Amino acid sequence: MEFSVNQIAALLNGEVDGNGETIISGLGKIQEANSHQLSFLSNLKYEQHIYTTKAGAIMVSKSFVAEKPISATLIRVEDPYASFTALLEEYHKAVTFSKSGVEEPSYIGENSSVGTDIYRGAFSYIGKNVKIGNNVKIYSNAYVGDNCTVGDNTLIYAGSKLYEGSIIGSNCTIHAGAVIGSDGFGFAPQENGSYKAIPQMGHVILEDNVSIGANTVVDCATFHGDATLIKEGTKLDNLVQIAHNVKVGKNTVMAAQSGISGSTEIGDNCIFGGQSATVGHITIANKTTVAAKTGVPKSIKKEGQTIFGYIGFDIKKFLSSYALFKSLPDINQRLRELEKKG
Amino acid sequence: MEFSVNQIAALLNGEVDGNGETIISGLGKIQEANSHQLSFLSNLKYEQHIYTTKAGAIMVSKSFVAEKPISATLIRVEDPYASFTALLEEYHKAVTFSKSGVEEPSYIGENSSVGTDIYRGAFSYIGKNVKIGNNVKIYSNAYVGDNCTVGDNTLIYAGSKLYEGSIIGSNCTIHAGAVIGSDGFGFAPQENGSYKAIPQMGHVILEDNVSIGANTVVDCATFHGDATLIKEGTKLDNLVQIAHNVKVGKNTVMAAQSGISGSTEIGDNCIFGGQSATVGHITIANKTTVAAKTGVPKSIKKEGQTIFGYIGFDIKKFLSSYALFKSLPDINQRLRELEKKG
Amino acid sequence: MEFSVNQIAALLNGEVDGNGETIISGLGKIQEANSHQLSFLSNLKYEQHIYTTKAGAIMVSKSFVAEKPISATLIRVEDPYASFTALLEEYHKAVTFSKSGVEEPSYIGENSSVGTDIYRGAFSYIGKNVKIGNNVKIYSNAYVGDNCTVGDNTLIYAGSKLYEGSIIGSNCTIHAGAVIGSDGFGFAPQENGSYKAIPQMGHVILEDNVSIGANTVVDCATFHGDATLIKEGTKLDNLVQIAHNVKVGKNTVMAAQSGISGSTEIGDNCIFGGQSATVGHITIANKTTVAAKTGVPKSIKKEGQTIFGYIGFDIKKFLSSYALFKSLPDINQRLRELEKKG
Repeated sequence: MEFSVNQIAALLNGEVDGNGETIISGLGKIQEANSHQLSFLSNLKYEQHIYTTKAGAIMVSKSFVAEKPISATLIRVEDPYASFTALLEEYHKAVTFSKSGVEEPSYIGENSSVGTDIYRGAFSYIGKNVKIGNNVKIYSNAYVGDNCTVGDNTLIYAGSKLYEGSIIGSNCTIHAGAVIGSDGFGFAPQENGSYKAIPQMGHVILEDNVSIGANTVVDCATFHGDATLIKEGTKLDNLVQIAHNVKVGKNTVMAAQSGISGSTEIGDNCIFGGQSATVGHITIANKTTVAAKTGVPKSIKKEGQTIFGYIGFDIKKFLSSYALFKSLPDINQRLRELEKKG
Repeated sequence: MEFSVNQIAALLNGEVDGNGETIISGLGKIQEANSHQLSFLSNLKYEQHIYTTKAGAIMVSKSFVAEKPISATLIRVEDPYASFTALLEEYHKAVTFSKSGVEEPSYIGENSSVGTDIYRGAFSYIGKNVKIGNNVKIYSNAYVGDNCTVGDNTLIYAGSKLYEGSIIGSNCTIHAGAVIGSDGFGFAPQENGSYKAIPQMGHVILEDNVSIGANTVVDCATFHGDATLIKEGTKLDNLVQIAHNVKVGKNTVMAAQSGISGSTEIGDNCIFGGQSATVGHITIANKTTVAAKTGVPKSIKKEGQTIFGYIGFDIKKFLSSYALFKSLPDINQRLRELEKKG
Repeated sequence: MEFSVNQIAALLNGEVDGNGETIISGLGKIQEANSHQLSFLSNLKYEQHIYTTKAGAIMVSKSFVAEKPISATLIRVEDPYASFTALLEEYHKAVTFSKSGVEEPSYIGENSSVGTDIYRGAFSYIGKNVKIGNNVKIYSNAYVGDNCTVGDNTLIYAGSKLYEGSIIGSNCTIHAGAVIGSDGFGFAPQENGSYKAIPQMGHVILEDNVSIGANTVVDCATFHGDATLIKEGTKLDNLVQIAHNVKVGKNTVMAAQSGISGSTEIGDNCIFGGQSATVGHITIANKTTVAAKTGVPKSIKKEGQTIFGYIGFDIKKFLSSYALFKSLPDINQRLRELEKKG
């Protein structure tokens, strides 16, 4: 994509100072940008770079006064950093949603419908009775099972798999290799020591604006009609495990390799660190922070706490105990000395 | 699938009390079922619901006496809960194995054979010299490498990958994204600090009734002719790692994100909690329970123990130590006071 | 593949003692090999087996003197073990790179080029503007996004996914289900408690001789032009997480389920145990060993240390503390006794 400086300035309600016909095809840092890239100067600590930059154009504050000549065209805006961020997002969105059309061969089962501006990559699979919204991008080798629903503007990256009956909201992102709706790990022990699978007949619901990381797994609910539920705005990183019947609240973030055991309910605005985990059948209050590698052993009822530890508890208390754990050889020595005296 | 109440009653050896022509197409909870669903009343604590249920039919005990009028048709059976569970399983099995036929394009290499009632989803891949049994369901984008063998009634879900030479038993389930037979992590350090790959030429054997979770990985054995072995009835959850040359016994269950290091041998009827792990080259006795997040540092020789801890040991002893770990600030204070006195 | 004993002997600069026309089609252990397999006798502790072996041929030392008749043909070499290892590697390489040609249907986008001796499995996907070197093997259902580059002799196994713009060196191995270049987990908290995705516009570079395990994930860098970098010779096991902007040095090995948080830089010749992890934005010195399950909380500046622990520190100190942790009930008892006396 190429734009003239004049076009960009118009978009940002900015004023051009220099050659408005300069063609811009990308964004870059002021120190590294080339003559087809646009950069910005916000913090005047970096002012020196504007006199040597090779960028084609630079966004500066309306109040900026140059002390030396500048070769780049300037675009004067209210807030250069905010303008740059806005452009970056627009650019990213344009790139991310640039794919369209149907590459062949791809598969779509009977009674399935897709919206407008769809992309269906080669070897992507859509089962029967599937409803796909507008502007959905389904990459190569992705699998959307029978009876799934996918909302508008959702990205389903290469090789991700949605089991039958999954319901995916709008503006969701499902990264490569993620699995939605696999069987929960439910097995009933038999008298002879073997296990019998408990039928897992529920499904998964991802509400709007949910992001699922690469190779993350969300299991389906056990009962027909029930759902493992990830609420609006929640973001799961890569290689996360969400077991059957779990509910995760709104705007909760879970870092890589964390795992939530079956039937646990997690509140809104929680944060889980990498490799953290919870036992099953508990409730985690809103705004709980679970530090990396923590194991949560029981329900957290009070909002806003931070939990840390192998068997997690209050982070300050855990860190006090851990500091003394490191000092155990010293503590043991002190004890010995007292014993000698005694 | 639709059945009349009369058909279901005949199957369950039950007696119909009401309209036997009522059509049933699903199962539901007594509080939530609709007029095309069948439910059950077992525990009389829930009797109230039978007078208000919208279910088309309810299974009740032969001895049940209604206190008020009931709109649903009744099916009187010996044990309503057992009958419901049996129906649930039959229904689930029917749904699970409902796919059949070959969707195109799909790929099958030379000298490969498949049994009856096969399903081969679009973009599924079967290599050369592969033997697939009867009633095997291979979903879209699944990959079965050359020289693999797959037993009857095995489910190979979307995008799972079996490397060359894998041997899969009957009645196995391999969930989406699972990888069977990837190279073990074997590298010989060289004098210059680099590593040389040790050829991993063995394969993987899954015996009958084994279940492999989504995105779980089972590496192949190192030597040609040797196998990483998962014995009959064992169930692995999602995102589990089984390294090269590992043997896992019968009817062992391993929860999500657990990991077994190379050449370790695990007994029968063991239970591994989530995110647990073992070092390599050890032996774990039958009926060992390894709690969640535990690291097993050495062989467990006595059967029936439960191990817990970062470096795991007897669970009771670990919990005693951990309780005191939480009290370390108090212990330190008590020590200080004694020192003052001293 | 079949070779005569004479051909193998010529390759190894060995002398044939027996029938040089014996046909060999594989390698095996001396106790288990059949008449079409070649084995070796190096350690004379195992000499007894050479008199009973069913192997077609045995490599022995030039100085070996038999005490009884031997049915197998002998190949006399300088160092039988080294010769066997060399053959094993050659054989493995021949098997590993044996696939060639294009299976249909497979997909290749416009302006993309592939080298000689290529294998493109059925349902493999190559996007636009991709450059693939010579002797690259791309298995079924693998995905190579737009603008990727892949060096010579690289193996891309079934169902692995390379996002747009990934740069893969020569002699790399990417195992099944691995994901390279997925979005980093970057979300900016908004005032209303929701999160906004920070555009992840960088890419991933794997230098030469890098190995990526099955279902491992390497996220792309945040900024356009920046890369998450895995340097030459580094080997990642299965289910490993490498977050955005991470740099991993040369010849570092990371065992299964380990995870590196964003922007951390890891030195050369490091070793990470299974399920270990680091926080983000730190630096790990060359030759650091991080034991299994360890959490690294801060930069490691001195080379050659071994770190262990839930919040990791020097391994000797950690093990001293952990031994005393196990003795806490005893320590508590000793303290009580002093308190009683006091």
